[in-house]
Amino acid sequence: MELDKLRVNGRRLQASLEAMAEIGATPGGGVHRLALSDEDKGARDLFVSWLAGMDLEIVVDEMGNIFGERPGDKVLPPVMTGSHIDSQPKGGRFDGILGVMGGLEVLRTLSENDIETKRPVVVVNWTNEEGSRFSPPMVGSGVWSGELDINWVFDRTDINGKKLGEELERIGYKGSAAARSRPVHAYYEYHVEQGPVLECEGKIIGVPKGIFSIHWSDVYLDGTANQVGPTPMEGRNDALCSAAEMILKVNKLPSKMGDNMVATVGEIQNYPNSRNVIPDHVHFTVDIRSWDDDLVSRAWDDLRNDFKVIASRRGCDIRLEETWKVNHMPFDERLVNGVLKTADQLGYSNHFMVSGAGHDASYMAMTAPTAMIFVPSIGGRSHVEVENTTWEDCEAGANVLLHAVLKSAMEG
Amino acid sequence: MELDKLRVNGRRLQASLEAMAEIGATPGGGVHRLALSDEDKGARDLFVSWLAGMDLEIVVDEMGNIFGERPGDKVLPPVMTGSHIDSQPKGGRFDGILGVMGGLEVLRTLSENDIETKRPVVVVNWTNEEGSRFSPPMVGSGVWSGELDINWVFDRTDINGKKLGEELERIGYKGSAAARSRPVHAYYEYHVEQGPVLECEGKIIGVPKGIFSIHWSDVYLDGTANQVGPTPMEGRNDALCSAAEMILKVNKLPSKMGDNMVATVGEIQNYPNSRNVIPDHVHFTVDIRSWDDDLVSRAWDDLRNDFKVIASRRGCDIRLEETWKVNHMPFDERLVNGVLKTADQLGYSNHFMVSGAGHDASYMAMTAPTAMIFVPSIGGRSHVEVENTTWEDCEAGANVLLHAVLKSAMEG
Repeated sequence: MELDKLRVNGRRLQASLEAMAEIGATPGGGVHRLALSDEDKGARDLFVSWLAGMDLEIVVDEMGNIFGERPGDKVLPPVMTGSHIDSQPKGGRFDGILGVMGGLEVLRTLSENDIETKRPVVVVNWTNEEGSRFSPPMVGSGVWSGELDINWVFDRTDINGKKLGEELERIGYKGSAAARSRPVHAYYEYHVEQGPVLECEGKIIGVPKGIFSIHWSDVYLDGTANQVGPTPMEGRNDALCSAAEMILKVNKLPSKMGDNMVATVGEIQNYPNSRNVIPDHVHFTVDIRSWDDDLVSRAWDDLRNDFKVIASRRGCDIRLEETWKVNHMPFDERLVNGVLKTADQLGYSNHFMVSGAGHDASYMAMTAPTAMIFVPSIGGRSHVEVENTTWEDCEAGANVLLHAVLKSAMEG
Repeated sequence: MELDKLRVNGRRLQASLEAMAEIGATPGGGVHRLALSDEDKGARDLFVSWLAGMDLEIVVDEMGNIFGERPGDKVLPPVMTGSHIDSQPKGGRFDGILGVMGGLEVLRTLSENDIETKRPVVVVNWTNEEGSRFSPPMVGSGVWSGELDINWVFDRTDINGKKLGEELERIGYKGSAAARSRPVHAYYEYHVEQGPVLECEGKIIGVPKGIFSIHWSDVYLDGTANQVGPTPMEGRNDALCSAAEMILKVNKLPSKMGDNMVATVGEIQNYPNSRNVIPDHVHFTVDIRSWDDDLVSRAWDDLRNDFKVIASRRGCDIRLEETWKVNHMPFDERLVNGVLKTADQLGYSNHFMVSGAGHDASYMAMTAPTAMIFVPSIGGRSHVEVENTTWEDCEAGANVLLHAVLKSAMEG
């Protein structure tokens, strides 16, 4: 068969995604498949059964990362592709799983057409990309790439105090292989965009130049609780009012610092959280992202000063924690250009862009040439049950992945 | 004994309060004695055992209100005093219980001195004043005074879906007497101030002219959830940012409408409450209080308009619910002046003021001449574990209560 004519089986890809969407399905049409939950185990089992049906070499490492390897003609560093099976709480049916099923579909297409590649091709599922149950996110690729310490990761706990390492053992996915990087010739990650850009631009394929810098922080405020009725406004130390002012500062940060930024407060806890008691403890999170690392640092400095002024004016104590920070991660120029060219050759409209969301590709880019392929999210919606992408676009992205992988796998 | 010289036993009052503070004691030095909990039952049992030890007529009505009646010389409408045994979650050791123990101490003082009063004197514990476990508050006095329907109150549920009526039966305090008002000659409620006014003024006894109008409402916001990274600031429908603007509007309401007002957001729930998801659902409460009923109505109208403008500008749907409203409740002028005079006669500095907090006295004032007696809350703190009042002030307030009750009970 002429390689140029090779295409994935869109219906089969759809069927794989639909089968996966049943595991942890929510009434609202999404999936709830938190890392290392029974649902995660169920989806992993199905993935492994599909790999086993293809006669691949299956490796599960001590982080629970699952690799299915199709040998090449030569013993050379492989081409790798994949993403993650876990989801956000009440998340969507495409985030993560599309990249794993897309990679599987590429392998199936190569196998049924008896395509011999020079290099091995590996499909991977990375453990706990979302970080919703166990923070931080992307620990599977983080440990594998050597950026995170495995014992520290094993000790991360969920809201019920369960440790990541114990839950990994419980679901039977603590493998024996070392979670340690090996030379990889090229890593491709196929994912839904999770934003509105492709839809707005009317393009099918998005090719990010890299991933935004991400800065996470936690703010803790202490004021004074009191009965709301007899306590005059004057002299109150209302922690929730302080937080409200700060939330609006975060919201205005991008327009203050420049467009190339998003800033969000996603989480807030208020205590004692009683209708007739002035709040005395508030915790909230701040997420700042930009392509420009320095801009993120300057924004955080600026915000920190604003926060201190607000807290002091409102008589609250403030404690700030920088919880997580990654610099922006540019992808491999040659691979990125290759993906753009592949999309052109296959006749899919495409758009050179940037990724505001973090991905396992961030850590992979530290150890191997890396690129990503995006397809449109309908309405730009993601991390929600109504997350959606057309089956046509899923197939288009998988075809771009197929030919990008193939090109790299044929390199000597 | 000369009646003028009669004084309560401050040490005995302290001992009663200390014994009660052990029931539901928290590590932080407060009490957690939610309405109709096992702790509430324990404290009720102790109260009833003390009443029984004094040879009073004990009546428990179908609302669980407990009355201990000391007969008078004549069959006349009684003088009644009391408050409530239940507490806020992690509340203080004085809120409510001081008024019940104060009333008990008055009866004990009358009995041990063989004082014969013309009218009966009744001490009462009202069921569920706080409204923390079962909303709304003050349902015991509300039903008794005929303002609330008993079956509606019985159907109120706690956060676990348990009904108030069932919990009342479970703890054995659903009595057989009808919860229906009888003629009462005078009702006095002794309570900690729960605010900073007496401390600021350097006065021992506070005498409120009445209770603020209280307006409770609930705000529900619906925006659009999305992954924070890839979603541009432009076009977001962030429900938490909308709420933050509204919280600050509530906070500024009193200075906008006039000083004679307090306004507070005490409670907020944010969904999905995940660090990297734009919030799409927020619920928060608003509490507005003032002496001036019209001002409260105008403030709520003003706020409602502001809320709608904010929600519309930020692309959020808004739903507003008026949850509870009581008009301001002026106390009986003759009784209030009597309490002020009594405090003067006993040599306690005193202050004519207003109550920002709601009390059972609100409902009682609808059926009987009513007045209240306040003593200082240290630091103005209440509804918190560190709530405190000096034993000297507790004793002073009980002496004022004693002589106010005595004066009314001697009236023919």
